[in-house]
Amino acid sequence: MDRCIMCIVLLFAALSANGGHTKEIPNFIVMLMDDMGWGDLGVFGEPSKETPNLDRMASEGMLLTDFYSANPLCSPSRAAMMTGRLPIRNGFYSTNAHARNAYTPQDIMGGIPDSEILLPELLKQSGYHTKLVGKWHLGQQPQYHPLRHGFDEWFGSPNCHFGPYNDVNTPNIPVYRDAVMAGRYYEEFQIDKRTGLSNLTMLYLDEAIQFIKQQHLKKQPFYLYWTPDATHEPLYVSEKFYNTSQRGLYGDAVRELDYAVGEILKTLVTLGLDKNTFVFFSSDNGAATYAKTSGGSNGPYLCGKETTFEGGMREPAIAWWPGKISSGQVSHQVGSLMDLFPTILDFLGLKPPSDRIIDGISLKDTLFQNTGVQRPLFYYRGNTLMAVRLGQYKAHLWTWTNSIQEFNRGVNFCPGQEIQNVTTHDQTQHDPPLLFDINRDPGEKYFIKPNSEEYRSVMPEIQSAVATHIKHLVPGTPQLNMCDEAVMNWSPPGCERLNKCLTPPASKPYKCTWPH
Amino acid sequence: MDRCIMCIVLLFAALSANGGHTKEIPNFIVMLMDDMGWGDLGVFGEPSKETPNLDRMASEGMLLTDFYSANPLCSPSRAAMMTGRLPIRNGFYSTNAHARNAYTPQDIMGGIPDSEILLPELLKQSGYHTKLVGKWHLGQQPQYHPLRHGFDEWFGSPNCHFGPYNDVNTPNIPVYRDAVMAGRYYEEFQIDKRTGLSNLTMLYLDEAIQFIKQQHLKKQPFYLYWTPDATHEPLYVSEKFYNTSQRGLYGDAVRELDYAVGEILKTLVTLGLDKNTFVFFSSDNGAATYAKTSGGSNGPYLCGKETTFEGGMREPAIAWWPGKISSGQVSHQVGSLMDLFPTILDFLGLKPPSDRIIDGISLKDTLFQNTGVQRPLFYYRGNTLMAVRLGQYKAHLWTWTNSIQEFNRGVNFCPGQEIQNVTTHDQTQHDPPLLFDINRDPGEKYFIKPNSEEYRSVMPEIQSAVATHIKHLVPGTPQLNMCDEAVMNWSPPGCERLNKCLTPPASKPYKCTWPH
Repeated sequence: MDRCIMCIVLLFAALSANGGHTKEIPNFIVMLMDDMGWGDLGVFGEPSKETPNLDRMASEGMLLTDFYSANPLCSPSRAAMMTGRLPIRNGFYSTNAHARNAYTPQDIMGGIPDSEILLPELLKQSGYHTKLVGKWHLGQQPQYHPLRHGFDEWFGSPNCHFGPYNDVNTPNIPVYRDAVMAGRYYEEFQIDKRTGLSNLTMLYLDEAIQFIKQQHLKKQPFYLYWTPDATHEPLYVSEKFYNTSQRGLYGDAVRELDYAVGEILKTLVTLGLDKNTFVFFSSDNGAATYAKTSGGSNGPYLCGKETTFEGGMREPAIAWWPGKISSGQVSHQVGSLMDLFPTILDFLGLKPPSDRIIDGISLKDTLFQNTGVQRPLFYYRGNTLMAVRLGQYKAHLWTWTNSIQEFNRGVNFCPGQEIQNVTTHDQTQHDPPLLFDINRDPGEKYFIKPNSEEYRSVMPEIQSAVATHIKHLVPGTPQLNMCDEAVMNWSPPGCERLNKCLTPPASKPYKCTWPH
Repeated sequence: MDRCIMCIVLLFAALSANGGHTKEIPNFIVMLMDDMGWGDLGVFGEPSKETPNLDRMASEGMLLTDFYSANPLCSPSRAAMMTGRLPIRNGFYSTNAHARNAYTPQDIMGGIPDSEILLPELLKQSGYHTKLVGKWHLGQQPQYHPLRHGFDEWFGSPNCHFGPYNDVNTPNIPVYRDAVMAGRYYEEFQIDKRTGLSNLTMLYLDEAIQFIKQQHLKKQPFYLYWTPDATHEPLYVSEKFYNTSQRGLYGDAVRELDYAVGEILKTLVTLGLDKNTFVFFSSDNGAATYAKTSGGSNGPYLCGKETTFEGGMREPAIAWWPGKISSGQVSHQVGSLMDLFPTILDFLGLKPPSDRIIDGISLKDTLFQNTGVQRPLFYYRGNTLMAVRLGQYKAHLWTWTNSIQEFNRGVNFCPGQEIQNVTTHDQTQHDPPLLFDINRDPGEKYFIKPNSEEYRSVMPEIQSAVATHIKHLVPGTPQLNMCDEAVMNWSPPGCERLNKCLTPPASKPYKCTWPH
């Protein structure tokens, strides 16, 4: 406790020195949606226009049109956001096969390494009180839990809310209250798989609001990482929003999340915290196009989750900080979830760790002055650099959707879309790379001919950015190679208290299979 | 003159009686874009967000998300809007082949029949001063010209600005000032085909503003039909907006049109006419997807111009009338360009002609009170009813993009899109119809199985709407069957004055060929 108070004093002093006069220490709220697509918000063109609160948030702040996740899949994307580093560096990838999407199902052995520095760790050191509400996804074994990696509080789950399982072959996913389990999905925390009814988003909203109020009372700077997962299959929604959307259950879930965002912002305003709180809204990867009408929308962009086309990694993004971020702005700055790490540190006058490569860049000037800076954006799939964006150009070094065998079984990441030599069903290397102007051609339909003047004038700079990237790349130890049923959520900490401990099978590690 | 003054008096009396107190007679401005798609406006999700004036117009008025053209092609769409009647009724179709898109190139013999009643005719009778600025497209022979069908003034062209022609085999398209030609495209009215530079949109803007100012001075109620065609190939833009868009020349053209819309609205505000002027913005058909990166965007919708998928007929639409239409509204009312006819009449307390079927409905209550009404929407292609929308459901009776021969030659109305049994390359009749929920599935990708409960509960009402429609359908005399090079714009009225008369060839009428 003494340590933290000291930190606040130091930070306060630093902020004062920085600005030349006394400033309030800002709060930070990062709202990260699950499988929500670029096109799911009214302000991004969703025809039903059912997100009035998010649309208002955008009109009161800054809309970022060219904002990306660091990966087309959940766990790597979230690990990258937390560390400011690409999954290939922080270990959230697999080398079991080439260019495969790997994540953290509950039989995964890996998780976020202790050697990685997470944003909440640095904020905690600076006197912030930190809380995660929602899905973690950086490893389900206790050593990987949020409270071991910078969070003071946690309400939510380590894995996706898949199920119901039978607790014999597979345990149901636990929901944690801080370091101990509070129950399991489909047991204490119900999701009706038939109807989609569940009060989880309301629980997560309530947690957020209570947390904000408590910190406000204590005059305690806070960092809230809010990650409800209602838009990830199996979709869920509260009774209040059930069957209220034009778009079916997926739209119901979006409407409830939009409502919740509105309530959180309203709480900030009511408490007078709005001018002192940076709120950022985004999503972890593109909409799950394979989920058909149960998935979201990627607007005009190609394909979705699991792919390195724009639909897989371009995200809705809104920054809100009344008084600091002017209202009604649009930025086309190429941004990444990884930028939140250095940006939030920059707000405090702090630099990111200098002993490692940080892939994110500070967007402080973009947010405060709407300036722009050119930077390359790297699209990874597993252990492979698939594509690069620089300015309005995107070059595919590799293309792949999924295998033709899987595709023929009905798994389709690009339903209704087929672009020759682009939406390939084998892992196709492109040398020379396939080049697109994604401003003129957001759908990645019309490649720029390699013998054209445009191609020849653009590619050298892109190739140079790739070469520099590769030159400095030291891949982290892959965390997503090995699986073991023994590490599943059989006996989470606190299970004894609830009499919910299950007996794990004997440990039998095996190489995880990542089909696509 | 006496007649008109009398009309104003009568109308004024009618309006007073209607409301029980004296009201100002409103002005009407209809802005109809050319080949602009649903997804081309920032407010509809275009990523570059380059339409600040249109987005503001929407925020000050009502955005209509479910608004349609009456046809996926220009001439029939415009004829339908002017008459409030489907092309199959007003004659803007062909029977030369099945389900073909026909329009009014300059060798067309037909045009808008005298028997049709056009909105400006009724408004003129009620004392309005009426002007068309831009493309007409309801027939190039003098008997079909705007001044013969209700317009007091015209500045613009009868046909598309294709060319340049050599004036020997084909004459360049004339630009008219009222009843006489003022010059020709590529001659007096330049479009640089290499760069795309042309000042035409600025000319059309200036015409609009001068017209509004003149009517204001005369205290004369007016109807302005403003139809610039900069977004129709060959694209054009003024120097001021050249190379300013992220999206290339198409985006430059959109930016200039957005600017022009802003200037027109600003003029209304400056003159104090804003509270007394209904302004409606839309487009004649979906974006020309076949034009690749020179075409616009249909957002999440399928295919484009020439097709009866959503991308071909769903249009951007904004209604603006400060004080009458509340700001910041969104309506999901299924609307049609044909609705402008009865809606504008309704604003005046007038009923549409009762001696014929009017397909449009009054949207007055939708616009003023944001109420909704269920109505079937019919998607025609030429002489064939291809599809029907009722509520959130759309049933395809026929599907067709274009012939496989044409497709193999590179003409593609659905680039990058391929949905089995939907984006067909033969004219495919669907019995039972292909049913989609276009709210849950805006991309028309997932048909509802005919043996499902949903299908069985929905189809009877749709089938009944079709049966009623067919029962009362008396097709008009097809105007777009016959072509003749002798009827081209060789010697438009007034050509003598400019010494620009050309000698027509001998008349040789032939059946027009409509390839798709």
